[in-house]
Amino acid sequence: MRQAGRYLPEYRAIRAKSDFLTMCKTPELAAEVTIQPVDIVGVDAAIIFSDILVIPEAMGMKLFVNEGSGPKFETSISSESDVDKLIIPEPTEKLKYVLDAVSLTKKMLNDRVPLIGFAGSPWTLFAYMVEGNGTKDFVKAKAMLFNEPKLSHKLLEKIARSVSHYLIAKIEAGADAIQIFDTWGGMLSYEMLREFSLRYVQQIIFDVKAKFGNTIPIIFFSKGSGMWLDDLVKTNCDVVGIDWTMDISVAKYIVGGRTAIQGNLDPIVLLSKPEAIVNETKNIIEKFGSGDGHIFNLGHGILPNTPVENAKLLVETVKEESKKYHHK
Amino acid sequence: MRQAGRYLPEYRAIRAKSDFLTMCKTPELAAEVTIQPVDIVGVDAAIIFSDILVIPEAMGMKLFVNEGSGPKFETSISSESDVDKLIIPEPTEKLKYVLDAVSLTKKMLNDRVPLIGFAGSPWTLFAYMVEGNGTKDFVKAKAMLFNEPKLSHKLLEKIARSVSHYLIAKIEAGADAIQIFDTWGGMLSYEMLREFSLRYVQQIIFDVKAKFGNTIPIIFFSKGSGMWLDDLVKTNCDVVGIDWTMDISVAKYIVGGRTAIQGNLDPIVLLSKPEAIVNETKNIIEKFGSGDGHIFNLGHGILPNTPVENAKLLVETVKEESKKYHHK
Repeated sequence: MRQAGRYLPEYRAIRAKSDFLTMCKTPELAAEVTIQPVDIVGVDAAIIFSDILVIPEAMGMKLFVNEGSGPKFETSISSESDVDKLIIPEPTEKLKYVLDAVSLTKKMLNDRVPLIGFAGSPWTLFAYMVEGNGTKDFVKAKAMLFNEPKLSHKLLEKIARSVSHYLIAKIEAGADAIQIFDTWGGMLSYEMLREFSLRYVQQIIFDVKAKFGNTIPIIFFSKGSGMWLDDLVKTNCDVVGIDWTMDISVAKYIVGGRTAIQGNLDPIVLLSKPEAIVNETKNIIEKFGSGDGHIFNLGHGILPNTPVENAKLLVETVKEESKKYHHK
Repeated sequence: MRQAGRYLPEYRAIRAKSDFLTMCKTPELAAEVTIQPVDIVGVDAAIIFSDILVIPEAMGMKLFVNEGSGPKFETSISSESDVDKLIIPEPTEKLKYVLDAVSLTKKMLNDRVPLIGFAGSPWTLFAYMVEGNGTKDFVKAKAMLFNEPKLSHKLLEKIARSVSHYLIAKIEAGADAIQIFDTWGGMLSYEMLREFSLRYVQQIIFDVKAKFGNTIPIIFFSKGSGMWLDDLVKTNCDVVGIDWTMDISVAKYIVGGRTAIQGNLDPIVLLSKPEAIVNETKNIIEKFGSGDGHIFNLGHGILPNTPVENAKLLVETVKEESKKYHHK
């Protein structure tokens, strides 16, 4: 999940001097803010600072990111000719800045912690591309699925191929694991989730595994899709991320050891009193209980108004409590 | 689900002359817009035109409703003294306008279709009252649950008692069925959903059934809680409402005849082409299949930009397709 960001004064100091996209596109800045949470908060892994929308941008859409009002594209995708104009970008050309950020971060981390690369799921990127910006209900994106399933598949296929190339290039640049974020999976009905989201995630996982076998763990997170956990596992991911609405003991039972589980503290807990943070964190660790395969994480991105000391308390609590259940 | 509203030109004509709260508080106007969808679209039941926030208002909070930017309270609830100041309103005094609207609508409907009364769940009302307005993540409301569980329970208890009295009064005024909307249930973890939402819904259902036995069907809808359908059923409701993310065949299996099921077409389907509307509607009816206990409905409120002819097509399709499975 998102670790870098506005909750860190050290991040805000850099952000004050550069806009968001410039930070993504300047490897030195991206590497610096990627490593901040490792140094300051003490997390066990770093996730590269970037944005899921660099893919649509590399495919040919002009992107504006304003951290306040959210991302926006100059135009949105609404017709077959719009889809045809999009390219499947060669990462070493169009997304070189991300790959450079990954290599530089790897070098700067010097094997202290693993580095995670990420991408949005095809459906999540499709939703932004068809809407032209973030919305609450994704009326335009879903209407395209209902009205033009063939065109939707054409676009999703193009996005999926772009994401596969991108994730493979990120791994080649040094990422130790990758995560696919299906942020808007939970907006879809079960049939549409499978048809328009999971099949493309599965295809990406297939492409990555065809290249690297099982050497690179693939984490898949679909927000609001806890009901369909068994289907998420069947994408062939190595780790399934769950949001805070899923109960981790139920998730452990459903997953049945087929994948590891990442999650799932409600990020809002970090805006609470210390005793609530400790209790809720302990509760999740206890509910998973003994056995391998739990990566403690938030159930969604960290909130901008999270006090840094609360993030630190979380990390300390996880490290301390985990000892009861895990001996290595 | 919401049936009256901006998608009907006849509604907009009335709304152009009165603000939203005036419409709620003028029985003649509320009755008129309640009956519009019955006359125009041909639905099989009417749901009284009102707003869930009339309860917090009757409890003592000053409410402003703007259909564009959403509802807002003059002040929000943040301390024990704020909670203590709230009253448990006597519906025949503070909410007489709703009861009058119910009786008038009943009279005007003249038994053509049943009339449904509704209320927000205590947690959903709590969220609005603590936030002071609608938000996306309910940071303040959830932080109160984490930080001050006792105070939260005190407030929820007060809201639940207010809702019980209100629903009982609505039934006495003529409502044939009632629906409880837990719009924000899906924002909570499983444990918090049970502790802070479902137990109060169960209490309200207990209160209503203590008065009326099983003569008045109680519909319970918790958006985004499909994962916990078994717990929703255990509130002792007569009908469980499901949103479009749940699969109705899975829901039928889990519910196992303990309650009827209401749902679950994605409202966005009504912004699609006619063939998509027909196909998606047929799909849901086929998936429920034969047997009693399916109330066809949208999986959430109708969208303001829904073309009226699409709403009509939906109703026609449901009536026609249902014949294959239901013979009365």
